[in-house]
Formats: sequence, structure tokens, C-alpha cells
Amino acid sequence: ILRKRIVVLAGDGIGPEVCQEGVRVLKAIAERFGHEFIFDHQLMGACAIDATGDPLPEKTLAACWQADAVLLGAIGDPKYDNNPAAKVRPEQGLLKLRKSLGLYANIRPVTAYDRLIEHSPLKKDRIQGADMLIFRELTGGIYFGEKGRAEDGSAFDHCTYNRGEIARIAHRAFQAAENRRQKLTLVDKANVLETSRLWREVVQEIAPQYPSVMVDYLFVDNAAMQLILNPRQFDVMLTENMFGDILSDEASVIAGSLGLLPSASVGDQVALFEPIHGSFPQAKGKGIANPIATILSAAMMLEHFGLQAEADCVKDAVDNALERGVLTPELTSGVPYTTEQVGSFIAYGV
Amino acid sequence: ILRKRIVVLAGDGIGPEVCQEGVRVLKAIAERFGHEFIFDHQLMGACAIDATGDPLPEKTLAACWQADAVLLGAIGDPKYDNNPAAKVRPEQGLLKLRKSLGLYANIRPVTAYDRLIEHSPLKKDRIQGADMLIFRELTGGIYFGEKGRAEDGSAFDHCTYNRGEIARIAHRAFQAAENRRQKLTLVDKANVLETSRLWREVVQEIAPQYPSVMVDYLFVDNAAMQLILNPRQFDVMLTENMFGDILSDEASVIAGSLGLLPSASVGDQVALFEPIHGSFPQAKGKGIANPIATILSAAMMLEHFGLQAEADCVKDAVDNALERGVLTPELTSGVPYTTEQVGSFIAYGV
Ligand SMILES: CC(C)[C@H](C(=O)O)[C@@H](O)C(=O)O
Ligand SMILES: CC(C)[C@H](C(=O)O)[C@@H](O)C(=O)O
Repeated sequence: ILRKRIVVLAGDGIGPEVCQEGVRVLKAIAERFGHEFIFDHQLMGACAIDATGDPLPEKTLAACWQADAVLLGAIGDPKYDNNPAAKVRPEQGLLKLRKSLGLYANIRPVTAYDRLIEHSPLKKDRIQGADMLIFRELTGGIYFGEKGRAEDGSAFDHCTYNRGEIARIAHRAFQAAENRRQKLTLVDKANVLETSRLWREVVQEIAPQYPSVMVDYLFVDNAAMQLILNPRQFDVMLTENMFGDILSDEASVIAGSLGLLPSASVGDQVALFEPIHGSFPQAKGKGIANPIATILSAAMMLEHFGLQAEADCVKDAVDNALERGVLTPELTSGVPYTTEQVGSFIAYGV
Repeated sequence: ILRKRIVVLAGDGIGPEVCQEGVRVLKAIAERFGHEFIFDHQLMGACAIDATGDPLPEKTLAACWQADAVLLGAIGDPKYDNNPAAKVRPEQGLLKLRKSLGLYANIRPVTAYDRLIEHSPLKKDRIQGADMLIFRELTGGIYFGEKGRAEDGSAFDHCTYNRGEIARIAHRAFQAAENRRQKLTLVDKANVLETSRLWREVVQEIAPQYPSVMVDYLFVDNAAMQLILNPRQFDVMLTENMFGDILSDEASVIAGSLGLLPSASVGDQVALFEPIHGSFPQAKGKGIANPIATILSAAMMLEHFGLQAEADCVKDAVDNALERGVLTPELTSGVPYTTEQVGSFIAYGV
């Protein structure tokens, strides 16, 4: 019997809807396996700005520090996006949370689901069997560097990385590769960027500690192409923050839907679990959002707690939903199920 | 009758092979239409480092300044890529050339060729009819910012943009959109980066001058996904240097091969034309490189000279090669043609 405190940051747009299903499934697991999960709902993102003026209120951050894990829906609102002058933005909350909690490694599994393979924009023979794990650095690089306007009106963003920031996530990626197909691909732009050259240096230094792992290097422009041309070549992909942001969203087409892809953000203490999709404001409240990415993020949380049987149970229930065609509209040309119906089906199945 | 001076920078890897075919086709055009094209071969890239120690010798740059246009093959050599300590790199030559010649707009057309549509890793119904023009800023951003190592051993790359750098390429992109399907998509990461916010500001300011053009904004992570999910939504895509590098290579999968995609880099004076593919060192000297990207780059050069009939003639000859199956190995499962055979077939056909 396990007792865990889980902060839920439902966020904006479809965030609350998908979180509700993630929580529903976690509750079902708790009941079935006799665990006690305590859920603590807190504000972050545009909803937090609206309520408090701050995208990441102190109270939210404090709650996260007290928690064993955080489940996040999505944040972001178009009213801030097209307003370059906005001073406070929902994204600042998420970035500050990642930084404050030290969540330096964002781990995104991407698999081609046999059940949904016809749904991918890619041809079946290209993606069948694709199965990769993307390690995206999450608390460094250009997202977190100095940024602003100079006196002449120009804008700047500074990208920096130090050895420690690279080494800690590289070790995690190598360890993951050891337990998978023993291949690690570092994606960078070392032919142009100094930070990329440091990434290559550090990874080359670390590599001998993992002799079973074959290391490969790819420039980011080439990687963006290879992901589509031949996704099966990738096992573990390691990359810096912004490249990881771009490539992991791109890689979602392999799975057939962004709505299927979970992620774990880990660091030294608390871990956070979130779907890789955004707040998708156009879909808010319509019951069309796919809760599976959030539910699979919850499964990653269970794994993180050491509850492998529980996690497998969730994954099997998700597979069953896919198999039975219990799907939200983006995945079916038949009669779609609502967000809540998909969540309930899976919760019932665990 | 036209007299034009063309500098040829064959470069490294497959560069010389594909350039030879580009030149062959330009010579055929000159003969057929009675123009005089003077070709001046110069060194740039790894070959220039090997010969002179400098990836862009003064002599090369001076020759480019004297020229009406530059035809570039490709540069880059693996012996520099995995050596983070290398002081001189082939890429520095290309970057310096772009900067020195003021080639601020890199224009990359991407089309799904009906003849090759089966060859794309993407399903036919997704890409049929896709036809976009990517405007990549080419002389600013993180490629050209300050970079180096700090005292604590960390590495940095600075990204900067000023209003003028954004406005000049934005005007070109808007003008292109006016003459196409009147849609412009700005790709940025304005929810995180200050430079992106400046891009959005400047584009929003300029937009009213082009009332017929519909402007759309997309975050780069989403754009990387949308390019694959629904490429037909794009007409003109405008973006900064590094995002353009990544997205245009990614977009090549729509055409079915990187070997088909030409580009023009334009500025205030001399213009440069180059295939978007790299030096592909593994293929060097094997006769398997596709010369079509270079030949279509030569066609863009002819258009730039105001020789539309001549350009169309080249494009028709390329279409004919595709139609007749005169294809290099990456595009056919049948008996492939060599680089030279494809080039000769097209040159003969103009
Ligand atoms: C909302 C945004 C700041 C965020 C990011 O780019 O990191 C999102 O796109 C993601 O990938 O988690
Ligand atoms: C060789 C490299 C510097 C170059 C770039 O990234 O600009 C290449 O990838 C390109 O796209 O022309």
C-alpha cells in the first residue's frame, strides 16, 4: 500500500478536461490496488494569471515541492500569443516551474501503434515498429538564457549550456539506451553552434562509460528529415531544449496523433508528467480532446513510483481502448467517443 | 542575347558532381538561346581549407562580387564535424559568403511532384497538390551572433534580430504571397523568445501594406508537425534562419527527395543558387547523387536573370526526365541512371 500526494495543474484550454480523465484513471488504480493517492488541484498558466496575476503563484510552487509528483494538463491562451507586448505569459509559469523543480530531463516515448498505423500521415512500411525515446533537455538553452531588447530596438535571446547541464541528462539517456536497443543519437548543430560543440564534447567524453551503447551524431536539419524518412533508425535521441521541442512534436506524426504522446519531466526530486500536446484552445469544452496522452503520462507517473504492475495495467487498458475503437474524433472516421467516454472506458478497464 | 558571368563554387563531397550537371544544362541553354555564360570556378569549403587554409579565400569572394550570379554545389566534410576542437570549418566559408554578399533571403520552393508522389514517405492524399515557398532569413539570428566559451567552461550562442533584418525579408515574402495564393505563415516561438516577438511585431506592422495577404502565425514546434500533417495549408512560409534550416529540410520529404529541391539566396546585389542538400560525403564520386536540385537551382538563376522562357525550358526538361523515369537511385526501384546521365538527358532536352 502506497500513499502519494499528487499535485494536479489542469491549466488552460483542454487541460482541465484531459486532467480529469488522468485523475479518473489514477483513482481507479488506487482503488483496485489499494493505494492512497491524494490529489491537490492548483493553478498555473493563463488561469493562474486571470485569478492571481501570476502564471505560477507561490502557493502552487509550494504545493509542488510538497508533492510526490505533479500531473499537468496544458497551458497557454491565444490572447497572449499575438500580443508581443504582453508582460505576463502563461508559458512563463511552465518554464519557471520546470526550472524551480529542476526538471532537467523531459522524456518522450514515441511509438507507432499498430492499431492506429493507418491513421498516420506516413506510410505504414516506413513507421511500423518505430519505437524511440526522446530525451529533451528542459531547463537550459535559449529558453532560459537572457532575453530582451537592446537600445537600438533589436531583440536578443541568449543560448548557454554548461558541462554539468549536458552531462546529467546525457547519463540518463545513456542509461536508458543500455536498457533498450543500445543506440543513442545526439542531435545538434555542431557545424555552426558553439553550444552544440560542447554537447558533442561532453557526450564523447561520457560515451566510454557506456561501452555497449553505439553513439551517432546528427545535425538537427538532417534529423528533422530522418525522423520522417526512417524513424526506425532511432532508439534514444538526446538533444537540447529547443531542438527537442521541435523534433518531439514532429515525431508525434509517427504515433498518428499528438493526443497519444505522454512525457515525464524528471530531475533530482519531484517529477512532473504531462501530455506533449498544448492547450488546444479551439477544442476547449467540446469533449473532443484525446485524454490518452494524459492517461499515459499518469502511467509514467506510476512507473516513477515503482508501480510497474499498475502502470502496465493502465497501458493495457489504453491498448484495449485503441483496439476496440474507443477513440476521440481525430483518430476515427467512425462515430467518435468523447473525452470523458474514453477516460471512463480506460478507468473501467484497469 | 545576354552575357553573364557565373561563379561556380563546386565545394565538397558530391558538390562537384552536381555542379557539373548544373553547368552542363546552363551551357545547353546558352547555346540554344544564343546567350553567353562565362563560368568561373572558385574554391570554397573543405576543398578551400585543404588548398589554402581558408574556407572562403579572398580570391573567391572577389570573384563572387564580380559575378552576376553564383552557383554553389555543397560544402562540408565529416573530418570537421566530429572534431569539436577544429578551429577552421567549411561551414564558416558558406556563412561568411552569405553574410559578405548580403544574401539575406533564402527562398526554397517545395512541391509534391505527381510523378514522384508514390516515392514520398507521406501518404499521397496528404501531399498531393502541396506547393509552398519557404522564406528563410539567412544572414542573422543565432548562426551569426556572438558565440564562444565563457571562463567557467560554458558555451554560448547569441541570437539577435533587428527590425530592418526582419522587415526586408518580410516584404519579399509578402510580395511573393501576393503573386501566389495570398497566404503567409510566420513561424516563430513568440511564446518564449524575444526575437520571435520582434518578428511578430514587425510582420504585424507590415501586413496592412499587403491587404490581399492573409497572415497566419504558428509556433515552430507546431509548424514541424503541421508540415507533415497537412502541408497543403502552406503557401508562403516566413521564418528566421535556424527554424528555416530545420523546417525546409524537413519539408523536403514532401517532394520525395532532398535531391530535388533548389534554392535561391538573394540580397541587394549578387544572388546565389544552390541545392538545399548537403555534401553527402558517403556518395562522393559514386555517380549516385541527384543533380536535379542543382539544375533547378540553375533554373532559378535564369529566372533571376529575367530569362523566364529559358527557365521554363529547364523545368520542362526536368519534368520530362521525371516522367520518363530518368532517375538517380534514391528515386527508383528500377535501374537507376547516373548523375551524369540524368544531367545529360536534361541538357539534351532543353
Ligand atoms: C508551452 C511551451 C513553452 C512548451 C515548450 O516549448 O517547452 C511546449 O511547447 C512544450 O513542448 O512543452
Ligand atoms: C552547412 C550549413 C551551415 C547550412 C545551414 O545550416 O545553413 C546548410 O545546412 C544549409 O541549410 O544551407
